[in-house]
Amino acid sequence: MLSKKEHLQAQQKTVELLERAGIILTEEEKQVIEVADFGLNELQSQGLQVITYINNEHYCAKELVLFPHQTCPEHKHPPINEKEGKTETFRCRQGKVWLYVEGEAPETIKANLPKSSEDYYTVFHEIELQAGEQYTIPPNTLHWFQAGEEGAIISEFSTTSRDEYDIFTDPNIVRVPELN
Amino acid sequence: MLSKKEHLQAQQKTVELLERAGIILTEEEKQVIEVADFGLNELQSQGLQVITYINNEHYCAKELVLFPHQTCPEHKHPPINEKEGKTETFRCRQGKVWLYVEGEAPETIKANLPKSSEDYYTVFHEIELQAGEQYTIPPNTLHWFQAGEEGAIISEFSTTSRDEYDIFTDPNIVRVPELN
Repeated sequence: MLSKKEHLQAQQKTVELLERAGIILTEEEKQVIEVADFGLNELQSQGLQVITYINNEHYCAKELVLFPHQTCPEHKHPPINEKEGKTETFRCRQGKVWLYVEGEAPETIKANLPKSSEDYYTVFHEIELQAGEQYTIPPNTLHWFQAGEEGAIISEFSTTSRDEYDIFTDPNIVRVPELN
Repeated sequence: MLSKKEHLQAQQKTVELLERAGIILTEEEKQVIEVADFGLNELQSQGLQVITYINNEHYCAKELVLFPHQTCPEHKHPPINEKEGKTETFRCRQGKVWLYVEGEAPETIKANLPKSSEDYYTVFHEIELQAGEQYTIPPNTLHWFQAGEEGAIISEFSTTSRDEYDIFTDPNIVRVPELN
């Protein structure tokens, strides 16, 4: 589990990356930035920082912040109570992100697989998003993503977010309380 | 109707405001920025510039750009075929915006009513949004908004957008084809 110090440092680093990109948060929003290490205890390698602007019964908008080469582990958004899973549009705002979804894979991928968890990355159809580019991921589709060398800021527009139902490929992943 | 020159100039001004705010568009997106004068032929006073990132059957995300003191005229999003009207979250990214919705009004409002259309502004519950602040407008609620002296950039997160069904208070308003 993240120490309070690591958590605070990650929040501060997130604020710095956002400020550099000209993205303005209220003081209140800065205090509640989510820092997700997915219970893997290697935040710089596998982790994600999240600002949720709105999440209502219809739509959700977030800012996702990745540190340099940080990876959000492979997962999918399944149907819940006969309602189809989350559809999400990733719009890269700053930096570069490699997004992997189900489908044809290149011979070698550009991202570096997190060494401790290589077996839990199984989809390799590669989409490179530069700032200003976007991609929409259909429901119930396995996906994972990694930032380039400068980190990345991604605006996520989606249907309602119910993170606690996400299915991760890595069985070691435990959703930390603040993500529920 | 806007001349081709006015249209191009408004697109260029929009790109400049976005670039100053660090918001990156692709070249393709720059070419299709919507410039809406609502058929009133006074764009600098009543008008709106729109970049639509995504508009699918579930959700919509746009960037709205207002020039200094430019006003988006009063309107509402009614139910369509028994589906409730559009819910929209306005997040001010840069500048300042005065948003007016149904409800209790102050003695004097901060925005300046567009002189030629004063009679068509009827709701005055005032919400001032600085950069980083946001407000969610319920369906079927009359609203209008005006930028402060430096203009404004607003991220709009919402349910599906069907602009052609919007109901404007001003009967002179005609939706230009590119808004449909």
